[in-house]
Amino acid sequence: MSYTLAISPLLAPILGDDAAARLFSAEADLEAMLRFEVALAEAQSRSGLVTAEAAKQIAIVAQGLSRNSADHAEAIARDAMVVPGLVAALKKAAGPSLEASIHLGSTSQDVIDTSLMLRAKQAISGIVERSKTIENLLSDLEKRFGALPLTARTRMQKALQVTVSNRLALWRIGNAAARTSLASLSFPLQFGGPVGTLEAFGPKGSALKRELALALGLDVLDHCWHTERSPILSIGNACAGVTTALGKIGIDVVLMAQNEFSEVKLQGGGTSSVMHHKQNPVKAEVLVTLARFNASQLSALHAAGVHEQERSGTAWTLEWMVLPQMIVAAAASARLTEELLRSIERFGP
Amino acid sequence: MSYTLAISPLLAPILGDDAAARLFSAEADLEAMLRFEVALAEAQSRSGLVTAEAAKQIAIVAQGLSRNSADHAEAIARDAMVVPGLVAALKKAAGPSLEASIHLGSTSQDVIDTSLMLRAKQAISGIVERSKTIENLLSDLEKRFGALPLTARTRMQKALQVTVSNRLALWRIGNAAARTSLASLSFPLQFGGPVGTLEAFGPKGSALKRELALALGLDVLDHCWHTERSPILSIGNACAGVTTALGKIGIDVVLMAQNEFSEVKLQGGGTSSVMHHKQNPVKAEVLVTLARFNASQLSALHAAGVHEQERSGTAWTLEWMVLPQMIVAAAASARLTEELLRSIERFGP
Amino acid sequence: MSYTLAISPLLAPILGDDAAARLFSAEADLEAMLRFEVALAEAQSRSGLVTAEAAKQIAIVAQGLSRNSADHAEAIARDAMVVPGLVAALKKAAGPSLEASIHLGSTSQDVIDTSLMLRAKQAISGIVERSKTIENLLSDLEKRFGALPLTARTRMQKALQVTVSNRLALWRIGNAAARTSLASLSFPLQFGGPVGTLEAFGPKGSALKRELALALGLDVLDHCWHTERSPILSIGNACAGVTTALGKIGIDVVLMAQNEFSEVKLQGGGTSSVMHHKQNPVKAEVLVTLARFNASQLSALHAAGVHEQERSGTAWTLEWMVLPQMIVAAAASARLTEELLRSIERFGP
Amino acid sequence: MSYTLAISPLLAPILGDDAAARLFSAEADLEAMLRFEVALAEAQSRSGLVTAEAAKQIAIVAQGLSRNSADHAEAIARDAMVVPGLVAALKKAAGPSLEASIHLGSTSQDVIDTSLMLRAKQAISGIVERSKTIENLLSDLEKRFGALPLTARTRMQKALQVTVSNRLALWRIGNAAARTSLASLSFPLQFGGPVGTLEAFGPKGSALKRELALALGLDVLDHCWHTERSPILSIGNACAGVTTALGKIGIDVVLMAQNEFSEVKLQGGGTSSVMHHKQNPVKAEVLVTLARFNASQLSALHAAGVHEQERSGTAWTLEWMVLPQMIVAAAASARLTEELLRSIERFGP
Repeated sequence: MSYTLAISPLLAPILGDDAAARLFSAEADLEAMLRFEVALAEAQSRSGLVTAEAAKQIAIVAQGLSRNSADHAEAIARDAMVVPGLVAALKKAAGPSLEASIHLGSTSQDVIDTSLMLRAKQAISGIVERSKTIENLLSDLEKRFGALPLTARTRMQKALQVTVSNRLALWRIGNAAARTSLASLSFPLQFGGPVGTLEAFGPKGSALKRELALALGLDVLDHCWHTERSPILSIGNACAGVTTALGKIGIDVVLMAQNEFSEVKLQGGGTSSVMHHKQNPVKAEVLVTLARFNASQLSALHAAGVHEQERSGTAWTLEWMVLPQMIVAAAASARLTEELLRSIERFGP
Repeated sequence: MSYTLAISPLLAPILGDDAAARLFSAEADLEAMLRFEVALAEAQSRSGLVTAEAAKQIAIVAQGLSRNSADHAEAIARDAMVVPGLVAALKKAAGPSLEASIHLGSTSQDVIDTSLMLRAKQAISGIVERSKTIENLLSDLEKRFGALPLTARTRMQKALQVTVSNRLALWRIGNAAARTSLASLSFPLQFGGPVGTLEAFGPKGSALKRELALALGLDVLDHCWHTERSPILSIGNACAGVTTALGKIGIDVVLMAQNEFSEVKLQGGGTSSVMHHKQNPVKAEVLVTLARFNASQLSALHAAGVHEQERSGTAWTLEWMVLPQMIVAAAASARLTEELLRSIERFGP
Repeated sequence: MSYTLAISPLLAPILGDDAAARLFSAEADLEAMLRFEVALAEAQSRSGLVTAEAAKQIAIVAQGLSRNSADHAEAIARDAMVVPGLVAALKKAAGPSLEASIHLGSTSQDVIDTSLMLRAKQAISGIVERSKTIENLLSDLEKRFGALPLTARTRMQKALQVTVSNRLALWRIGNAAARTSLASLSFPLQFGGPVGTLEAFGPKGSALKRELALALGLDVLDHCWHTERSPILSIGNACAGVTTALGKIGIDVVLMAQNEFSEVKLQGGGTSSVMHHKQNPVKAEVLVTLARFNASQLSALHAAGVHEQERSGTAWTLEWMVLPQMIVAAAASARLTEELLRSIERFGP
Repeated sequence: MSYTLAISPLLAPILGDDAAARLFSAEADLEAMLRFEVALAEAQSRSGLVTAEAAKQIAIVAQGLSRNSADHAEAIARDAMVVPGLVAALKKAAGPSLEASIHLGSTSQDVIDTSLMLRAKQAISGIVERSKTIENLLSDLEKRFGALPLTARTRMQKALQVTVSNRLALWRIGNAAARTSLASLSFPLQFGGPVGTLEAFGPKGSALKRELALALGLDVLDHCWHTERSPILSIGNACAGVTTALGKIGIDVVLMAQNEFSEVKLQGGGTSSVMHHKQNPVKAEVLVTLARFNASQLSALHAAGVHEQERSGTAWTLEWMVLPQMIVAAAASARLTEELLRSIERFGP
């Protein structure tokens, strides 16, 4: 899962997140793939599988390779992924003497899955940070408005009088639960070779895997997870958890901002092309949108969960279309929540 | 979430699971709801909120109440749930002197969510047991056939020669990962009162909650999760994890059973109404069906994840339509996998 | 697609529809399947393929066959569908002399798909009737309240002053568009034989198909649609169209019924187990729930749209789990809308 | 729905379609939006609402406006859509004397929905053309291979001997049904003003709408469809119909290309980074992927179908995230099918 859909320039300022989107750009993907190839050669040089000099040269050659996706288009159209073409380009640039030391005992899926995990780890870490900021902002709101009265509502009808503090608590436990899920994710190295058995390395495979994971800052699983996609599904589940938790903040704000309620006052707000009196709570609305978006994407991701035999082209490609979008949606949701909470000028009567 | 969809008699023998379906019957739901009411009165009697005698009487009266859903139909049509009618019936049967001691400080959602958790816990425990049986059956297959050669296939094309053991390993890690997710689930008591604040009990609320959870064998969360549905979503995620993991076994068997492959021989198999030479691998097929079913249901469950304000009628009701189906699908998947693995007469050449 | 999930007794009074649910009961399915077998023999008797006497006898024997699903459970568990067992039971009851005249040139899928179409046609026709009633009720509301002022709201904020008539118009066009889709559905006979080619009948096949369709009141397609499932998908699309259109009425009523808005007054309404002042707009809420439910189910139905080769066990079975639920949800939605509109006592200020 | 997600450069060569993607670029969207504003002024000049000179000037000013999305980013972040900022920029560039003649009586949704329809119409027309090419290619295959024997397979097991012609017929009827759905789509102008009532124009509104639709080559609906999204849902349904129909070709080819079957021989095919003997049927695989992708997206699109009150920010924004992706996926599917069919060198034994 190394590719992604980037958000169009006309949606990105509201629905996207710059930092997350950058991680899922073509350039970042190619960069991470080459990082895998270089780290692989280095790890293998320590086991004596390739020479130290070869590993060094491969790193230098990789440095000079094009990160321009246009240079790979033809190969992608043929192979439905970039790796075979990228490895061929790396070998060609390195020359015949280094060829045998490149991508040794590995396979496209090792490169693609590992590149994904490297970048997913970084993106999720960014969302965790945002979630902590959100927690702090909720504490601030608690201090400023917590003691004020608020009408609790069930089934969209007035129920009992509570305080702003009670409503904020609902937001806080949702945000905290989502962050706990993010924090418990693991980001494993993928390294199994052509059919997941690391058969090129015999008994050395396990140690090599551990060393490679360490070099790349990734977790290690005892097994190859070519077809066991729970690490992918867990990331998707957690991202949906984020957009759901923050979607609740969004819908609550949208409802509180209704004119007759006026339980919240926001700074800024969206304008209308003709009704100049309006202040639309657009960030809160978009939080609801993103929650629904990720809920649906999750079905696509789980539909991609069954990988037949030793590698599924159909299922794997579907992951590529969906997971990066879910991560970016979660990142955007966290960014918007932060902005929304900062814009609250009044909460309660 | 106290209600469920039951599988039709014409689907149940293949797509259902008796034990799980029983847990999500109307009777079992009413039983669990009344169990909550009785345990509540008992816990409150220990705090002196109701008398010990009242608690005892309530238990006796609850025993005699109708578990026949037809007796509750009118109330359900009015309230969109059974609880208000059930509590009214319980109070009526108990008489005026006990009324104030029934459902004291509680709310419909406490009853419904807790009833769900009581039964989900039991259903998931049954799936965990099946998963262990599956692990044992895979070990048996390993012993019988592990050393035989098998063609590894990637992107539906012959890749390299491996052994049956390698393929079995893919199945085992999937089944193990799914079981790990199931085993890490928590099944919390729901107890928050009308708007989630347990305001009827003041400082005594927290201890009462703990006592009630202990009596019912459920977990305790510090907060009320009326609107924080991650316990529900986690169960759905884990059930989808089960059907996905076992769906892989299904699709692999379907492909291995293709006539030209003949990499597996199954005892039994489905018959055709006209082509009497056929042996259809129907249990393996249904495993794939159930995986796809749960993948889609998961989007419905997450679409139900955002609960506005202090209680969402719309989102909550959607949970009721979806989660029991997902649990039963997971249970059926585990049952079918067990049967399928037992039916393997030959694996490999 | 002959089986269904029936709604549990504890959900049915609010989320179900009696007439639709009855059509998707095991009994109705078995009845329709036997109707197909009887009509097949009759049509074939007119082409001289079976004797008139045989056709007559088959009708009598079919009459006496058990519609009790329990009698078929073992066969269903083996074959993942009821037809092979049902045909065997019919042949056995008819005796050796009639065996060759039963199910002649047909296949399980002909029986199952046709049974579905017979019942779907009837169910959809019921929803169309409800939709006309809804139109009439909307006209009544227009007469009673149309001229009153109402605040148009965009992005949940006050926009401009309009009239109740404008809001009702939005409801009317949605309901009308949904009905147009329902009315344009076709319900084709399925008749293709074992692999969709009607190869048992040679040049006579086409005429036989036409005659059989006429007898059963179904449409005729030139081709066999064993694997071309657009008739199924179109029904699902149209049912989602119904729940979406009526879901809009639901969400608008929920919002209008908010205490601060009070733009609508409903007779009845759901009660609370503890907050006796509340009048919950539960029917309106459930309309939103059903819209979301069908939106998600539609992805499952379309996931079942790709049928490999000449018959897909996996995809077909998934249809069975999903489509009947969608139809019943649409029927329930129409019923609830009718009830909701009838309960409106005031609309506007 | 004026924005879109563009496919990343590393996916586009396989999963995208250049022509369709171009239609959903930021530039094409801005171009179409301005085309609406210009056509609006022109139509209004013929009704005397604005002067002919003003309309002419507006067209010239619009010509010079920036189509660079970066120039609109700040406004998008504020309003969650580009239109308020774009209209303001147009007015500013046009100067005070023209301001009142720009966007007169219209609203953001008119601009966005109309821009979408202009481009969707063109994209769908492109897919229809591809579908006709596919029909021709299937006829060619019929001529070359139709008479050859093929094993019909049901439930993944050998059923009966048929001919290649029979299998091709299944593909043909699917493709034809999908094209019929596409061809029956309507692409209506959106024109309702701030709350859908065209209240700025009184009795002239209807004629103005008709004239504007004619100028833009779009269909006319009697009503404003701000909240009645069946035109959007129908496009989504039809696009899912395309990917489903062509997904069947994909899965059949994948299965036929299995080494033991070898029922088809393809020219080209994807390469592996290490197993150089492999010829992966990647285009066929991707057809299955796209079918599953659109099946899931359809649930998101229908989840966006319920638009509350007079305009739903949350639901509308969700459409923007989903529909363009579905159209591009359908276009890509048609392109890949064409390429796949052209690559067939042998079909049958």
